[in-house]
Amino acid sequence: MATKIFTTTLISLIIIISSSHQLLALNHTPKFFRKFPFPSSAKSSQSQPQLDIHYETKFFQQRLNHFSFFKTPMFPQRYLINTENWVVGSGPIFLYCGNEGDIVWFAQNTGFIWEIAPKFGAMVVFPEHRYYGESVPFGSKEEAYKNASTLGYLNAQQALFDFAVLVTDLKRNYSANACPVVLFGGSYGGMLAAWMRLKYPHIAIGALASSAPILQFEDIVPPETFYDIVSNGFKRESSSCFNYIKQSWDVIESKGQTSDGLELLTKTFRFCQKLKSTEDLRDWLESAYSYLAMVNYPYPSEFLMPLPGHPIKEVCRRIDKGPAGTSILERIYEGVNVYYNYTGEAKCFELDDDPHGLSGWNFQACTEMVMPMSSSRKSSMFPPYEYNYSSFQEDCLKNFGVKPRPKQITTVFGGHNIHLALRKFGSNIIFSNGLLDPWSGGSVLQNISESIVSLVTEEGAHHIDLRASTENDPDWLVEQRATEVKLIQGWISDYYQNYKVVFDM
Amino acid sequence: MATKIFTTTLISLIIIISSSHQLLALNHTPKFFRKFPFPSSAKSSQSQPQLDIHYETKFFQQRLNHFSFFKTPMFPQRYLINTENWVVGSGPIFLYCGNEGDIVWFAQNTGFIWEIAPKFGAMVVFPEHRYYGESVPFGSKEEAYKNASTLGYLNAQQALFDFAVLVTDLKRNYSANACPVVLFGGSYGGMLAAWMRLKYPHIAIGALASSAPILQFEDIVPPETFYDIVSNGFKRESSSCFNYIKQSWDVIESKGQTSDGLELLTKTFRFCQKLKSTEDLRDWLESAYSYLAMVNYPYPSEFLMPLPGHPIKEVCRRIDKGPAGTSILERIYEGVNVYYNYTGEAKCFELDDDPHGLSGWNFQACTEMVMPMSSSRKSSMFPPYEYNYSSFQEDCLKNFGVKPRPKQITTVFGGHNIHLALRKFGSNIIFSNGLLDPWSGGSVLQNISESIVSLVTEEGAHHIDLRASTENDPDWLVEQRATEVKLIQGWISDYYQNYKVVFDM
Repeated sequence: MATKIFTTTLISLIIIISSSHQLLALNHTPKFFRKFPFPSSAKSSQSQPQLDIHYETKFFQQRLNHFSFFKTPMFPQRYLINTENWVVGSGPIFLYCGNEGDIVWFAQNTGFIWEIAPKFGAMVVFPEHRYYGESVPFGSKEEAYKNASTLGYLNAQQALFDFAVLVTDLKRNYSANACPVVLFGGSYGGMLAAWMRLKYPHIAIGALASSAPILQFEDIVPPETFYDIVSNGFKRESSSCFNYIKQSWDVIESKGQTSDGLELLTKTFRFCQKLKSTEDLRDWLESAYSYLAMVNYPYPSEFLMPLPGHPIKEVCRRIDKGPAGTSILERIYEGVNVYYNYTGEAKCFELDDDPHGLSGWNFQACTEMVMPMSSSRKSSMFPPYEYNYSSFQEDCLKNFGVKPRPKQITTVFGGHNIHLALRKFGSNIIFSNGLLDPWSGGSVLQNISESIVSLVTEEGAHHIDLRASTENDPDWLVEQRATEVKLIQGWISDYYQNYKVVFDM
Repeated sequence: MATKIFTTTLISLIIIISSSHQLLALNHTPKFFRKFPFPSSAKSSQSQPQLDIHYETKFFQQRLNHFSFFKTPMFPQRYLINTENWVVGSGPIFLYCGNEGDIVWFAQNTGFIWEIAPKFGAMVVFPEHRYYGESVPFGSKEEAYKNASTLGYLNAQQALFDFAVLVTDLKRNYSANACPVVLFGGSYGGMLAAWMRLKYPHIAIGALASSAPILQFEDIVPPETFYDIVSNGFKRESSSCFNYIKQSWDVIESKGQTSDGLELLTKTFRFCQKLKSTEDLRDWLESAYSYLAMVNYPYPSEFLMPLPGHPIKEVCRRIDKGPAGTSILERIYEGVNVYYNYTGEAKCFELDDDPHGLSGWNFQACTEMVMPMSSSRKSSMFPPYEYNYSSFQEDCLKNFGVKPRPKQITTVFGGHNIHLALRKFGSNIIFSNGLLDPWSGGSVLQNISESIVSLVTEEGAHHIDLRASTENDPDWLVEQRATEVKLIQGWISDYYQNYKVVFDM
């Protein structure tokens, strides 16, 4: 039976990459909402082994607009809280900066915090990001997502203020005023964690920002970075694999010119319904490659899909293995089958035909999270595409009635010359990145100062450090997490020491 | 001829203190808008000797609401700019953080920046604060000040964002991307300068925050601080002067019980029209004392009023000098005459009967700039008053339809335990204060770190260091300014050095 795994549980990575793909898609068509493809019978991410975590679910009344004083509605912000291990009144507060999805899903997929909390005697809090999960204003998701006027308060600065207000309130309620707050976050949540430390140093003493592409804006990093890294992830496994993929787009394009050709493509790739255009197939393949690069973990995982360890290695093995004479398309199919159908349960694949109207991350991407992305003709295995801001803006206007503000993030949070700006300003941020992760290209990969540091792992993928430990963790991952724990311990003991100095003054 | 000095040129201090007086006034009456008294023939502040400064006046289109993405109107932000001394492409940019008034008036009264700019090869920019002077949204001051819905975007965070956007744009237009920006500000503008450095380290390398009471919020400093400092300013000149003032309130109250008594008070204090209540007189006197403490400069000045040097000394001399048997009220009149009529030109005093409806600072005070102030029965010479948040809130609701957010500033910018929060975070801020200034009580008076420092002068008053130098400047003031210049030089050379390090990396 064909089912879709895209539940209401939005997934950080999926959402982020969908935005980059929209940009890529602009190359071929001005359509903004890409059709999102899912395998017909893969398991829902919700069905993956649940972490054994305990928390209370609570709601906090937040102001929808923190920055105007005209009457503004309130909305319930959901947060998960666990105080079992907390050393009452003095233990730290571990605050995960909820990102663009259901907070329960993030709590489930951030085992690291749960594992280290007891050791620190820490309270654990997972607040949900406004407009996601159950934290929606205007009474319902339908109302909240109706148009730009209701969506207008969905942005990073409002979200950070939500966290600040919530923490301040929690500290008072739990008589935890003297307790240091440590921030955690991955992906967009990692960006929020780093920014929160920079903007609210009086509220949090440090941040672990994992896979946080805070430099993926304007012209700070080359727009080709993301797809180049994905491509290199394939090339390093096998240059023939890279070449097969690179050559496949023209083959697909030429086959797709006729109805018979589309029929052939439909059959080759086992779609349940006939393809309407090659674009759908292209998107389906591009998604798979990009996600594979992000979750290119060294052990079997079920983060997005059930996958083997080193999944790209396996994809390339299958692409390469066919005997001479095997068609490119058959090779490609065998390869992506690793991503879409590793369990082998899918009989055919369903393309999601419903563009779903307004989605939260799409709105954020159309307003402040404007991340220019291109695909280089030379170094990328993807169809070449040059970022075109004008068409992007046009699409945003058409779909949301908003004009993007591509300078918003760099104006508010900086980014250009970040090493210059922060070399002697700020402290206690870890930017952790795995170089296999395509988002690492937009992240901080060098130490900025003694206490704003970069932890880079050659073999790491998207915020792998935040995931629960496994028996199969390689040494470098065990070490990375140990370093993070040590740095956080340093912040906390430094805080207690400063506390003593300041109050003995 | 009776004229009023209260022109459209709002004065930082006047506005700030008017808010504190409103609180004081709440003791006696729930009325929120105090009637503001002015002498009948004192010169307008605009008529004081003009500084010989040159600038171009320009306007920049700013977004009214930076924090929502729903369509928002633009408004013209005025700014004054001088590039005559600027070392093109590499010299620093001196940015004055415009506060709650006409920017031309602030430019005129901030001689320090103009004097040091040539030495630094600096560009000088004075942007006006939104909703003040000519920088009003909605086409006119009437429209902008109509109600809470139009006034809602008048707040510190929006104003800081205005500055950030403007600087970013200027840097691009002047090819000044590598140029370090140094912030200056006094009073509320000093608060903005400090906060801007903390929130936008990527935009400005340091801030001179003069007389910036960033701690005058919630319970950070005792609410009696302000009026205690004013009172001590009088007491240190003469304890009998202090006592006469302290005793005068009961005398006024008892005289004012009858119409004849009000007639007598009117005559004693030379009002042009008969007093309607003792409250007006009380406000008139309280204002004078508080302003006198703020502008208790060591040389003659015309900042608010034409005054002699050490004006409080002169006030007390006159209060004390009457022969035995001189009534308290006659003494008080002789004293405040120094403030309201030092030139001796006024024949009678006009009370401003028009509460003027909505004023910008009153709105800010009713929303985020909630500064609790009390007057101690024991240590203050003012009528005792205990800060009452409930009545304050009630008045704000009644007058503006807004509920104050007393925690807004501390949540956004911090304040509690500032030494703990910033001891190892941030850099390059000077908090300069004179201890005669009643606002010094809510300011940072101790070094926070090696580069977030406090410069305190025993004999200084409200942001005297920002004023133009005079022949009569005492040594401590000359030294204070020299220290400031040296620190700013340090930031700038440090910046250029870091620039080299980072770009040679």
